[in-house]
Amino acid sequence: MPDPRLMTDASLTPGAEIALDAEQTHKLATVLRLKPGASVRAFNSRDGEWRCELLRADKRGGALAIREQVRAPTPSPDVDLLFAPVKRHATDLIIEKATELGVRGLQPVITKRTIVDTVRLDRLALIAREAAEQTERFDAPAVSAALPLGRVLDGWDPARTLIYADERGDAPDAQWGGDKGRAAPIADVVAALSPGQPLALLIGPEGGFDPAERQLLRSLAFVAAVSLGPRILRAETATIAALSVIQAMWGDWRG
Amino acid sequence: MPDPRLMTDASLTPGAEIALDAEQTHKLATVLRLKPGASVRAFNSRDGEWRCELLRADKRGGALAIREQVRAPTPSPDVDLLFAPVKRHATDLIIEKATELGVRGLQPVITKRTIVDTVRLDRLALIAREAAEQTERFDAPAVSAALPLGRVLDGWDPARTLIYADERGDAPDAQWGGDKGRAAPIADVVAALSPGQPLALLIGPEGGFDPAERQLLRSLAFVAAVSLGPRILRAETATIAALSVIQAMWGDWRG
Repeated sequence: MPDPRLMTDASLTPGAEIALDAEQTHKLATVLRLKPGASVRAFNSRDGEWRCELLRADKRGGALAIREQVRAPTPSPDVDLLFAPVKRHATDLIIEKATELGVRGLQPVITKRTIVDTVRLDRLALIAREAAEQTERFDAPAVSAALPLGRVLDGWDPARTLIYADERGDAPDAQWGGDKGRAAPIADVVAALSPGQPLALLIGPEGGFDPAERQLLRSLAFVAAVSLGPRILRAETATIAALSVIQAMWGDWRG
Repeated sequence: MPDPRLMTDASLTPGAEIALDAEQTHKLATVLRLKPGASVRAFNSRDGEWRCELLRADKRGGALAIREQVRAPTPSPDVDLLFAPVKRHATDLIIEKATELGVRGLQPVITKRTIVDTVRLDRLALIAREAAEQTERFDAPAVSAALPLGRVLDGWDPARTLIYADERGDAPDAQWGGDKGRAAPIADVVAALSPGQPLALLIGPEGGFDPAERQLLRSLAFVAAVSLGPRILRAETATIAALSVIQAMWGDWRG
């Protein structure tokens, strides 16, 4: 297994010594049972990733000695995720997977059909940080406080294209046809984007957007409605699927 | 919410009456609390999807009367998934999401670094069936018995391209560089496929493939190695991501 990887705010310079917080110390000493002298990696988006030596990790705290840089930092592609909070397990999955898929910012949005209205930001930030450590990126996505959809759209920078996927139509009889039929295939929309153009992805709640919300979204020039095919995807599947297509065709999977 | 949707082997013809199994009866009567007269959908890959009326659902069993066809069946794209079983929760997620993403067949493969060696096929088939009901497809993917990777490759039809993603390199120091560096970006590989060409996707275990397995895979003419970008993805994320790109660029998301 590769050396454990810890995100830190501390400045990473050769020979420096940095303190570990209680959670990091617990992870190294208790979960991974590392002893002083073990090799660990520390990283942040400013200094990149560094090989470090564990100096101590016990009840009194932990510390690392910074040795040498392993990788210089590279920024994540400029894509944010706007998501309607769903059940806790599915929301956790969205945060973890969006982090693996290189999202820069996470914005919970409250829609008319959003059932969940309490969003534990500290919990989401922790999941994002752990996923960032695991996925070898240099930063964790920033988690913003939940906002109503209308507020988010009111303050939108029109230079940022908002790709919007709505898996459920509004009428029961139009469940796979109506709304998805009017949206363009995601590959066509993503293929037409300029490289480097700022993006965001908006995924609706399990029950779909309300007709008024859908009408508003469709009226905005910066919004591009996309279809994710003939099957109905759960919110977390739609999120992972759309982000994957975006990274593969527009983002940093292009090699 | 749309009417509940049940997969059935029974022949769906107007006016026919079909029996429900114990699990379907329980779902309609106890979980959804439906009464006789309620509207339900039944489907299979031969007859498509039909609107039905619930005749009865109680301790003695359940039955539906078939009314009219709602949709004619459409086949899923010809893509299979070969996956190394991982932890139970992640394996369940792979089955559910691969079903949503339209996979036709699910083949568990045992690799040298596969830790899990018992695969409960009945359990996986049940997850696939429930996901098929939810995702509005007409069939559930077929779940095959687990086989060693070598056996699967020995019997391979060379007309079926095997897209292979390996998220972990073999050496600890090559964890993001070595192997991923030699594979082509997935969008390039998928863009070069002919429409309708049979496909399969192979995703490795969390620890990656063994060097000998990797060498074997790279030597086979029907194998196309792909990269899923600079971050390390968990096995279930890599599966969902690669299938999404395949469906968006080659499969039935193209509109």
